[in-house]
Amino acid sequence: MSFTACLSYLAIALAALHLANGGYVYKTEYFTVPVDHFSFTNNETFRMKYLINDTYWERENGPIFFYAGNEGAIEMFCENTGFMWEIAEEFQALIVFAEHRYYGASMPYGNKSYDDNSRLGYLTSQQALADYVDLITYLRHNGSFSSRSLNETGDIYDLGVNDTIGPSPSSTNPVIAFGGSYGGMLAAWFRMKYPAIIEGAIASSAPIWQFTGMTPCNAFYRVTSSVYTDTSTECGLTILASWKAINNVTKTVEGKTWLSQKWKLCSPLTNDNDVLTLKQWASELYVNLAMINYPYSANFLTPLPGYPVKEVCKPMKNHTEDDLTLLESVFKGLNVYFNYTGTSKCLDIFSSSAPTLGENGWNYQSCTEMVMPMCSNGVNDIFERQPWDLKAYAKYCFETFKVQPSVYTIEKTYGGKNLNAASNIIFSNGLLDPWSSGGVLQDISKTVLAVVIPESAHHLDLRASNPKDPESVIKARKFYKNWIKKWIFHYQKRLTRNSNNSFVKQQIVLTI
Amino acid sequence: MSFTACLSYLAIALAALHLANGGYVYKTEYFTVPVDHFSFTNNETFRMKYLINDTYWERENGPIFFYAGNEGAIEMFCENTGFMWEIAEEFQALIVFAEHRYYGASMPYGNKSYDDNSRLGYLTSQQALADYVDLITYLRHNGSFSSRSLNETGDIYDLGVNDTIGPSPSSTNPVIAFGGSYGGMLAAWFRMKYPAIIEGAIASSAPIWQFTGMTPCNAFYRVTSSVYTDTSTECGLTILASWKAINNVTKTVEGKTWLSQKWKLCSPLTNDNDVLTLKQWASELYVNLAMINYPYSANFLTPLPGYPVKEVCKPMKNHTEDDLTLLESVFKGLNVYFNYTGTSKCLDIFSSSAPTLGENGWNYQSCTEMVMPMCSNGVNDIFERQPWDLKAYAKYCFETFKVQPSVYTIEKTYGGKNLNAASNIIFSNGLLDPWSSGGVLQDISKTVLAVVIPESAHHLDLRASNPKDPESVIKARKFYKNWIKKWIFHYQKRLTRNSNNSFVKQQIVLTI
Repeated sequence: MSFTACLSYLAIALAALHLANGGYVYKTEYFTVPVDHFSFTNNETFRMKYLINDTYWERENGPIFFYAGNEGAIEMFCENTGFMWEIAEEFQALIVFAEHRYYGASMPYGNKSYDDNSRLGYLTSQQALADYVDLITYLRHNGSFSSRSLNETGDIYDLGVNDTIGPSPSSTNPVIAFGGSYGGMLAAWFRMKYPAIIEGAIASSAPIWQFTGMTPCNAFYRVTSSVYTDTSTECGLTILASWKAINNVTKTVEGKTWLSQKWKLCSPLTNDNDVLTLKQWASELYVNLAMINYPYSANFLTPLPGYPVKEVCKPMKNHTEDDLTLLESVFKGLNVYFNYTGTSKCLDIFSSSAPTLGENGWNYQSCTEMVMPMCSNGVNDIFERQPWDLKAYAKYCFETFKVQPSVYTIEKTYGGKNLNAASNIIFSNGLLDPWSSGGVLQDISKTVLAVVIPESAHHLDLRASNPKDPESVIKARKFYKNWIKKWIFHYQKRLTRNSNNSFVKQQIVLTI
Repeated sequence: MSFTACLSYLAIALAALHLANGGYVYKTEYFTVPVDHFSFTNNETFRMKYLINDTYWERENGPIFFYAGNEGAIEMFCENTGFMWEIAEEFQALIVFAEHRYYGASMPYGNKSYDDNSRLGYLTSQQALADYVDLITYLRHNGSFSSRSLNETGDIYDLGVNDTIGPSPSSTNPVIAFGGSYGGMLAAWFRMKYPAIIEGAIASSAPIWQFTGMTPCNAFYRVTSSVYTDTSTECGLTILASWKAINNVTKTVEGKTWLSQKWKLCSPLTNDNDVLTLKQWASELYVNLAMINYPYSANFLTPLPGYPVKEVCKPMKNHTEDDLTLLESVFKGLNVYFNYTGTSKCLDIFSSSAPTLGENGWNYQSCTEMVMPMCSNGVNDIFERQPWDLKAYAKYCFETFKVQPSVYTIEKTYGGKNLNAASNIIFSNGLLDPWSSGGVLQDISKTVLAVVIPESAHHLDLRASNPKDPESVIKARKFYKNWIKKWIFHYQKRLTRNSNNSFVKQQIVLTI
């Protein structure tokens, strides 16, 4: 596999989610935010998209359930985060799904947004969080007070602020952040960086430690491998053996032709690069299938059976088969996926294995702050040896985007493994999810908790409930609900206490 | 007083500090940081200045005492923060004073730094904190690993990072942040935003609540007034009466001439604007004297006696005197200050009352994120009525800098009054300090503590110990020391615990 391929998995998973479930009712709205929240060199603004439903909201004190949108159009997260929808009524909550800048329709510079670094350079996690801060502040006050760059009247003096003491951005509505995958990272970081705005965060399948120095680079493929090996030892060993078999068979022209025909490739293998691409394609597929190894039938490009890994593994029963027989077995396995594609008669290894919405943006983020080192060695995992080559990666990033990877930005910004001072975050990870390799799997403190769900793949817990949900996922959702209740309770208790205090005591001291 | 004058007090106080005490030994160093930490649109870097002393540092585990430089050349903070110097040996600490960008020698664009918003726009508190993060990371590792924009070799691929797992920005050296005034705000915010990097913060005289909606706009002048009224009720009443007396007397040309001669003005008062300037000058002086109302003789432009407010108040004994007599009494009081200036034979009300280093920068910050509303009414304070006029202020800011005030940026960024999730910060305030009006005067939680020092003016507690220090200041310093010890202890305890855990448990789960 190549490093570029590695880093697009998150985006691929989104595509998987996009087509599943859905049918929730929301309004699509837009809110104007500054392009740059962190300097005064750029006064430009853009409209970010968000989806909103206030059916159940108790405006006076009801919470805001805020999904911290990640790398894709926001609708797919909205449609595939049924958990928020299912509990909103009980909590009398406002439901908001905010779209991440540079994805979907939230383009700071319209169709020029990706043109060059002077425009694309504002694509960072911190800028996105600052967008969300502005949006939340606006929603809490129904837009009753203004923000720096939001004045579109052209009259820069009319700030709409009371002459003496204006309204405070704080309010009686606690905000709970939700997110899965990169969105889960954002939810957790949101609480860490803006605890006065976010009362608590449910961060599902958030690989916040998938960064340099925090997690061994081979962990991701080890977990992926374990999903196959746990399903059947022979399956894992067969996949592992398949790489060598491919190499052996494709040494000759006849071998390439044989494999091209057997695997029904759209373009026959003509050289070693084609063979490499084939192996990358297969690797990605194994990872993707592990990520969406859901207990029930789901749509990933095309309908897949429940627990698709089990189906893929069925024909891979004997890793000691000779090369040709083994590759036929492997193809039978891959065919579980291939069989469902329906429309295409052949296997196109040169197109991405999923219509990865937002892939470009994620590649850019991966080349700047989201550098997630990955490697495999074929000893502790079922993949071919592939070291993590930062130099080659940096070269790719520079050639592609004219940027260089900032390997320590995330750790410096969000604290890395030292989360001792954080609070009110639940990190959940499914052990069937390759991304659990970079997740928080142990409690950090009494209020930063790890939920490990053995039977869950990539953020299954945030999806709508399903009769086939494993017991562990059902329990996890109950656990989240209890904690959300606690967070809201403490918020409102504090609010009552503060409103009794406020300026009064201070003024006793200061009165002349 | 005018609003522009109001907001330059912080800078004025620095000038006061600059000339006092001193004589510490340090090395002056420079460190290269990105101009913009929050986007990838600008790859420029600049050299920030810092002062360092490692005489007492125990490199293995010793703490780093880090002064978060504020709005002025760093040397003056270094010379006037004796507390850090006095306790460094006991703690085996590294002493670092970091200069704030756009002040002193730390100019991102050299002498063009203040030319326009495209250059000056990077002057923000968050950019400064991000500079400090990079500097601390570098100091902890003796520069053994690189940061995004720090590679000056031109070879963008050579990131100097180990191929597998590079060194982590975390280290065995806990960092304690210190700061006074705006520097105290930075120290507190530093801990809030980067708790993985800053273990605890001593924030002295930090008016983190001197912002819209958090503190009544008249609080600042109420506290200033109380300093005079508490010294002598008649003194306060005399100052209050003086504004009307000035207005009455200067109604006529003869009156203007009389006052100009009596008060030895360099330029005689010729119109109402001159009279306004005179009143602004006097108001500033009262504020400044309250801020540096130290128990011992200190240098503020020129030596002043201990408790200068007491000296100023001595001649102001009877507020019922007729206007002319009263103004003569007031001048006798102001003369305590004026008498010491020595070099000038006349009083120049058109020049700033102090050579306010960094005043330009602070004015810019006050016109962007550091908008501190102030007002007076002559009823609860001893000043003339002056409402807080945001529209007029916005007009001034736009005309001066082509920016508009962002009144809620600080609250949105740092949490305002909702500091419930913060930890390990001590806020200290002297009740003789006008800035205590915007300070934290009550404990927020078990680890965010308020120290109120009745006998202290503006960050007296961070200065070197002096035989005349009030008992309350001595006690405060002991309190800080104890908490610093606790913070360091817990840091090291956690470190030991973590090094026994690290990846191990995670790998047990993940091994295939």
